[in-house]
Amino acid sequence: MSAEKMAEAVNAYIDRLSNGTAEEIVDLYADGATVEDPIGAPIRNSREELIEFYSIITGLDSRKADLKWVKIAGDTAVFEFTLVTGTADMSFEITPIDIMIFDENGKVVSMRAVWEQSDLKQL
Amino acid sequence: MSAEKMAEAVNAYIDRLSNGTAEEIVDLYADGATVEDPIGAPIRNSREELIEFYSIITGLDSRKADLKWVKIAGDTAVFEFTLVTGTADMSFEITPIDIMIFDENGKVVSMRAVWEQSDLKQL
Repeated sequence: MSAEKMAEAVNAYIDRLSNGTAEEIVDLYADGATVEDPIGAPIRNSREELIEFYSIITGLDSRKADLKWVKIAGDTAVFEFTLVTGTADMSFEITPIDIMIFDENGKVVSMRAVWEQSDLKQL
Repeated sequence: MSAEKMAEAVNAYIDRLSNGTAEEIVDLYADGATVEDPIGAPIRNSREELIEFYSIITGLDSRKADLKWVKIAGDTAVFEFTLVTGTADMSFEITPIDIMIFDENGKVVSMRAVWEQSDLKQL
């Protein structure tokens, strides 16, 4: 798994957070991948749970993710991004750092998101 | 394990990289902790291997670590720092992002360092 391919996958993730369906986001994950978002929350590890999780985002009135930086070594990418989401009444911005581990096919096998309540701001 | 305690441990790690012995650095780790630095390198997991690893840094003529930022969630701290090291002839600066996972006693059970050759600069 090359650093270039991992960077492409991270960019696809950010793009799909803005424009994709929950299924398209989850297609970036390997079967049996685990998602812990934020770290400390219950771990999601079935395709159904992942789709349910990302449907929360894709079901909002508006959403826009922007990659701030990505750093890659071996099988792991660490990246920071902002996600601005909106409903009819309110907008929120969150700035997580995600840790993604990839398999040899370029699929994500583990994602752990580092953020706390103070990273979530009402705009 | 509170976020405050983890932040203290990260600060102690940075301080000991500048001023501590290899043993003092390794005292921040739990028994059986794993160190993968950089990610992709062989995993070190005995106290002897960890001391050998950190002795490379503590044996240099000069060393100075500075924390750039730290972000914490659940049992995990992610932080970026610069480490400037010097020998008689040369100085190097490296800027890793480390991912540390803690146990309930505040000891590090896993450290994975994200950096590549391009993060290592001769000054």
